[in-house]
Amino acid sequence: MPSYVTSITCSRCNWRCDPGTIQNLCPVCASPLLVDYDLEAIDRAVTKQSIAQRPPTMWRYEEFLPVPDPRQIVSLGEGFTPLIAVGSALTELGLPNLWVKDDGLNPTGSFKARGASCGISMAKALGIKAVALPTAGNAGGAWSCYGAAAGIAVHVAMPEDAPAINHLECKLYGAQLTVVKGLISDAGKLIAKGIRENGWFDAATLKEPYRIEGKKTLGLEIAEQMGWQMPDAILYPAGGGVGLIGIWRGLLQLQAMGWVKGNLPRLIVVQAEGCAPIVKAFREGKAISEFWEGASTFSSGLRVPKALGDFLVLQAVRETGGTAIAVSDADSGAMMQLLARRTGIFAAPEGAATLTAAAQLREQGVLAPNDRVVLINTGTALKYQEALEQICN
Amino acid sequence: MPSYVTSITCSRCNWRCDPGTIQNLCPVCASPLLVDYDLEAIDRAVTKQSIAQRPPTMWRYEEFLPVPDPRQIVSLGEGFTPLIAVGSALTELGLPNLWVKDDGLNPTGSFKARGASCGISMAKALGIKAVALPTAGNAGGAWSCYGAAAGIAVHVAMPEDAPAINHLECKLYGAQLTVVKGLISDAGKLIAKGIRENGWFDAATLKEPYRIEGKKTLGLEIAEQMGWQMPDAILYPAGGGVGLIGIWRGLLQLQAMGWVKGNLPRLIVVQAEGCAPIVKAFREGKAISEFWEGASTFSSGLRVPKALGDFLVLQAVRETGGTAIAVSDADSGAMMQLLARRTGIFAAPEGAATLTAAAQLREQGVLAPNDRVVLINTGTALKYQEALEQICN
Repeated sequence: MPSYVTSITCSRCNWRCDPGTIQNLCPVCASPLLVDYDLEAIDRAVTKQSIAQRPPTMWRYEEFLPVPDPRQIVSLGEGFTPLIAVGSALTELGLPNLWVKDDGLNPTGSFKARGASCGISMAKALGIKAVALPTAGNAGGAWSCYGAAAGIAVHVAMPEDAPAINHLECKLYGAQLTVVKGLISDAGKLIAKGIRENGWFDAATLKEPYRIEGKKTLGLEIAEQMGWQMPDAILYPAGGGVGLIGIWRGLLQLQAMGWVKGNLPRLIVVQAEGCAPIVKAFREGKAISEFWEGASTFSSGLRVPKALGDFLVLQAVRETGGTAIAVSDADSGAMMQLLARRTGIFAAPEGAATLTAAAQLREQGVLAPNDRVVLINTGTALKYQEALEQICN
Repeated sequence: MPSYVTSITCSRCNWRCDPGTIQNLCPVCASPLLVDYDLEAIDRAVTKQSIAQRPPTMWRYEEFLPVPDPRQIVSLGEGFTPLIAVGSALTELGLPNLWVKDDGLNPTGSFKARGASCGISMAKALGIKAVALPTAGNAGGAWSCYGAAAGIAVHVAMPEDAPAINHLECKLYGAQLTVVKGLISDAGKLIAKGIRENGWFDAATLKEPYRIEGKKTLGLEIAEQMGWQMPDAILYPAGGGVGLIGIWRGLLQLQAMGWVKGNLPRLIVVQAEGCAPIVKAFREGKAISEFWEGASTFSSGLRVPKALGDFLVLQAVRETGGTAIAVSDADSGAMMQLLARRTGIFAAPEGAATLTAAAQLREQGVLAPNDRVVLINTGTALKYQEALEQICN
């Protein structure tokens, strides 16, 4: 199988380069690079019917992904996670057509497996021997996992107060873990220094072009699982926001190919009240966010005070007629419990935040009673023992 | 869809009853009841090809399962977990044809989701309002989960020293959790008292006929994922042993239908040195095991001093030419690390125990170099934070 990638293009200045070269940020303007495909060639090469026959992982969409040779794919069964109807179990929300995309059922227990599987596969294809990244927690675990599977060294810097299990998974996988007193932004400075000094490949969020391609499969799966229809809205808990940008780009590609008809779903950003830089920028009509001082929330994945891709997230939200909303930890904790007790879904606090947001947006009339709404649960609550102790005890 | 169940039959005295009635142990001899099917009718109703088209959950085998009406199925995406080839990543083992069936990628992070999904679906079908069970940990989480999804009350008794996450998941799901100073056997006494006093349905291991049917899908999936071939050996970490009995019965059914040819795989029981009642009974040529005093291992799922289905486990092992082996926690901890670092699989200690056993059985010549060997990883290490802290720190 050849790759259908036509070029790597800067998300801001349109600088371009050929696929197959090692790239980080745009060499001209230091913005994220994105991957473009020959969609017509993909459309000739594969059909919805042939995809339906393939194994239930995100690699069923391999033509939409950048890996040139399937032997380079590093896979542990990630993706094609269940889309679970929950509207009838949560009637008080007034959203009968409500689904949870349960990405807790991934290797490493979070949606970060998608980005790491694609990112590490491409690192392997490009001959990279060591990668480095800062993380709020789950990305560190996921890249440590896929790095181990690929025989690629992984250097991770993580806040001290990330869930203990995130530290432990990096250690068990044999990653080099540096613990940081501070936030992911502080971890980022430390990793940048290590990269300068040691020549590691920078695998931080959006600092290489392929993590987002893995995340894109979330959008492709939602389309396929809904019978190649678009939902009306997708609620996404945004830390770095890559998943939302990925879903947006994936659905745009399907739309351009005519595989799904009609408007894109409204893409809705959910953040925590204790760290809501993108919500603030959205409300203020700004194109980029400001660094959020004193970030604090038990949704550790949302403790991202400034996202490199904030401008793309804001663009996706605005172009699709979406919105952005911040919710409290108290409400999200209550929603974790409600979701577990009514549906059996054991959602991460980040996932529960989207349920909290859905309830509020329905009350405000932003979501209509008949809207078909998908919530992204980014991980399993098994990774949030500290938060569970707060909620349950 | 009608159910293809023909009768419920005692595993010891052959007492029989019709499907559709609420049953626990055999009313004559107090042994476990097993479910029989009209295999010819299943063979007429479904093909390998039609199964291949279905969603990737254990319910793709619905004809092999007892639920009479698909609307009664309580599903969160359980089953059809990945079968991952690991032989080439672990060359020093000398087993090039080695796979891990990674059941950590289930709802609730363990294979217990299979039994609970089937058991709770049947409880719902039979109109049961409250179930009760003792647990070493993961079954409690799984039944709490599916009970919550079905609106069935769940009463769980669990050892105090089960992993903290097992206590927390039961609590978040709203189960009534009783903490026991002691083992699952002590929890069992407490639950039996609650059942007598309150009329709860007894959902303890093998005390109702349907949990094992869910576990059976492990065997069906292994057959399908290997192209409807049998492996040469399956290594299973046995606490209560229901999964092994289920795999055995599932493969016998496929064999009887002619869907798989040749001999059944050797079924190999793996236990921990600190709690190995079935291994002891196997070595001593006994038909049943004795209560293991002072059970102790960090593989909490193996802390089962006496299994109700021990005689069936021993029969399955002997009839398939298998064996039974006990491994140390130190070796299993090292294997958790090796497996993570080489393959990316984040196995529960119980799963790692099967890798330890495979290495030893290969050294002893019990497994031959070209044997096709499947290890059952029963859960994710995310649920074993205490064990990880021991291994990593």
